[in-house]
Amino acid sequence: MSYPNWLSQRAHLSGSRMALAYGREEWTFEEINKIAIEYAERLVSIGITDETRVAILAKSHPESVFIMYACLHTGCEMVMLNERLSAAELKYQLADSGADFLLVDEDLQEKVDFDNKILFGEIKNRNRTEFIPIAEWREDRTISIMYTSGTTGYPKGVRQTAQNHFSSAVSSALNIGISPDDVWLCVMPLFHISGFSILMRSLIYGMGVQLHPKFDAESCARELCAGTVTHMSVVGVTLERVLNQLETENLEVSPNFKSMLAGGGPVPVSYIERAEKFGISVLQTYGMTETSSQTTTLQPADAKRKIGSSGKPLFLYQIKIGTDAAAGEKAEILIRGPQVTPGYIGKYAEREVQNDGWFSTGDIGYLDEEGFLFVVDRRSDLIVSGGENIYPAEIEKVLLGHPAVREAGVCGMPDETWGEVPVAFVVLNEEISTESLKDFLTGRIAGYKIPKAIREVEALPRNASNKVLRRELKTWV
Amino acid sequence: MSYPNWLSQRAHLSGSRMALAYGREEWTFEEINKIAIEYAERLVSIGITDETRVAILAKSHPESVFIMYACLHTGCEMVMLNERLSAAELKYQLADSGADFLLVDEDLQEKVDFDNKILFGEIKNRNRTEFIPIAEWREDRTISIMYTSGTTGYPKGVRQTAQNHFSSAVSSALNIGISPDDVWLCVMPLFHISGFSILMRSLIYGMGVQLHPKFDAESCARELCAGTVTHMSVVGVTLERVLNQLETENLEVSPNFKSMLAGGGPVPVSYIERAEKFGISVLQTYGMTETSSQTTTLQPADAKRKIGSSGKPLFLYQIKIGTDAAAGEKAEILIRGPQVTPGYIGKYAEREVQNDGWFSTGDIGYLDEEGFLFVVDRRSDLIVSGGENIYPAEIEKVLLGHPAVREAGVCGMPDETWGEVPVAFVVLNEEISTESLKDFLTGRIAGYKIPKAIREVEALPRNASNKVLRRELKTWV
Repeated sequence: MSYPNWLSQRAHLSGSRMALAYGREEWTFEEINKIAIEYAERLVSIGITDETRVAILAKSHPESVFIMYACLHTGCEMVMLNERLSAAELKYQLADSGADFLLVDEDLQEKVDFDNKILFGEIKNRNRTEFIPIAEWREDRTISIMYTSGTTGYPKGVRQTAQNHFSSAVSSALNIGISPDDVWLCVMPLFHISGFSILMRSLIYGMGVQLHPKFDAESCARELCAGTVTHMSVVGVTLERVLNQLETENLEVSPNFKSMLAGGGPVPVSYIERAEKFGISVLQTYGMTETSSQTTTLQPADAKRKIGSSGKPLFLYQIKIGTDAAAGEKAEILIRGPQVTPGYIGKYAEREVQNDGWFSTGDIGYLDEEGFLFVVDRRSDLIVSGGENIYPAEIEKVLLGHPAVREAGVCGMPDETWGEVPVAFVVLNEEISTESLKDFLTGRIAGYKIPKAIREVEALPRNASNKVLRRELKTWV
Repeated sequence: MSYPNWLSQRAHLSGSRMALAYGREEWTFEEINKIAIEYAERLVSIGITDETRVAILAKSHPESVFIMYACLHTGCEMVMLNERLSAAELKYQLADSGADFLLVDEDLQEKVDFDNKILFGEIKNRNRTEFIPIAEWREDRTISIMYTSGTTGYPKGVRQTAQNHFSSAVSSALNIGISPDDVWLCVMPLFHISGFSILMRSLIYGMGVQLHPKFDAESCARELCAGTVTHMSVVGVTLERVLNQLETENLEVSPNFKSMLAGGGPVPVSYIERAEKFGISVLQTYGMTETSSQTTTLQPADAKRKIGSSGKPLFLYQIKIGTDAAAGEKAEILIRGPQVTPGYIGKYAEREVQNDGWFSTGDIGYLDEEGFLFVVDRRSDLIVSGGENIYPAEIEKVLLGHPAVREAGVCGMPDETWGEVPVAFVVLNEEISTESLKDFLTGRIAGYKIPKAIREVEALPRNASNKVLRRELKTWV
């Protein structure tokens, strides 16, 4: 199957509807499509085609959206780089992805070196080569690639196809409904699936996106109260800050506002209760980069009855626990559906991600007798901190690169603001200060991955095959 | 791709939501699924499997829905028979489809003979064979088969797959929106795509269906005013009757009501204006059995600006006029998208229905400079009478079977109530009364196909290759 080009189709079908708003500026679908085509004509001059892989390093502003939409028109694959990563991490992803070009925001140009680095400002100065946007997108076309780490500590580039994004958008609509008047507030980074999927929904639904440069509780609260937005994606920490703002200022949320999707780990029930006082439905979701966002979602009606649950699968999806676990029995969560990535690129390109259509998440969970999913242990001891995924292995790997460090073990520690933060335990070869180790990490890994505490210990807990027992480490915290 | 079994999934995800209402009775998705499984267990006892083709001849009542849903569970193909057809017409479709069984409503049992004829009441008395509903439906699975005629006058059995129905439901949702509270009023026959697609949307959206045994203006008006329904499908004649009822009784339509989809030929602008006074949005659509309902839909915002247009394609669909017609130029309407049937069964099983993905409708139309579709001439001089399609060839063929008739030509005549009605012109071998000819037709073709007038003429207008010029006939009316 193939889709009519989403941008062209939206411009044709609902051209006069608002597509993007940023501060006081607004663009309709017709306008944004025209701009995207102009940018695409410049990208074509640069040499970008439907066989090109383009890395994008950008902050959240309209030009980033224009360039992403231009890339959609050219048919190239977009590697979405996380601006919070260190130069070393970015370099790895650029090399692994084999990106042909790096398109980079002026503000971020110092972050990383690359041969084919093109600043956003430079694109605008290029000539335009006339071209006709591709009329149809094959459903297996890779639209975006996002890196996520794993047990090995080597980030894996996850393909997200047109079908992945489409089924995700449609499944969400079949769950919470859609209306031609919907506007989604986007304060999540566009390089994460949480943010990028808002753009995809915008094109598929013909829905407006209210884009903020970054999360700011006051601006969010203002949008909720002004009735300018109907939906919003949050993680625990951003939800709490918005609630705090609403409470402190004693504000009233507009009845236009419909619901919040909460991803990136469990949201405390107390937040859901506080949100309820403002008439805000918070829908806890479970999903990941490999499933192009939500796979399960808890309905507000069940939020209090099913505390801690991530809900049931969306209409097109299936979930099972292990090969055949009974209700309540814990095992690995397996996922099946058109939202599951067909696979990785680069180092892990050959790895099979589906087994008879089932994707093994690595997360441990159970289904209760009514079929509600409870996630009890995250894959590879994953630490979720303010919506960002942190894999202990990637921090341990860098720590072990320091000559003073003989052994390293990292685990998560509960944190009131971020949900969790990483802490490290090290066995040393020689005396070294925590500060020196943190300095060593800085620039090598993203700031949010730097352990909040590093403790020297005599030995790490290990199992028979000498693997660090990170769960044991947690009890030391 | 495959879908989780829609019925099982809906029972699991929104089991407590209303699925079907009929008079004062109501069934939730959990209840209706349970009933459907019980019926399915009886159908399995009868010998129905996922390799069976089952013809269904039924009126619109809950048991018909239960049996259709039971068939979905067994995985069999359903041939949907039109209860208004004559015995001869039904016999033809039963034979052509090679149906293994005929499941028939007690009220309709006299309509046709068939070896494996099973009354609804008999099904209930069968034993139950335990069976597990199929967990997944392949997207290319044929769910329903509906007969439609054509140039030859031989009805063709159109396959409608899971993907056809799914893409139709999703495309409609992306156009008009969906909400978990939606309830669709169904007064269209379930054996037509207009009615059956309401059941499909119900399962896909988790939406309630308010089923009426047949169209009745007073009951419809009552639903609209009580706020018990949000959507309704109409054809010109039913819309007019509802409006007349609302006007005569000076009624007020509930703000719960959202929109009407108007199919089966163009709706007069005056109806749209009258509907507007009650706050009712009437959305003119263009679609056919081969495209599992709507392919294009006119938005209310454009209804007055684009008088006579059927709107623009839905999100997943494409339309073109001829091979490459300019704006305003008239040629055949071609359609492309996942809603297009993969083909016919029976006599026409080998006929290719898609050419590089494009389906030739046989209808003539044009796109204006903004891309709105105008249908100017229906395929094969199709007569659309009160939402039923009538092909001149099928009436001519039967007329020619009478010894007194040497030549016959049929065309449509405008009719205030039905939109159009058929009229016939005959060249006779011998004297015969109109009444005798009508008697001859009765029982051989459905009542609504019997010409309102039959006129004797000296000769029929024919072209060089001796084909009857039906367009010329129209000028004689």
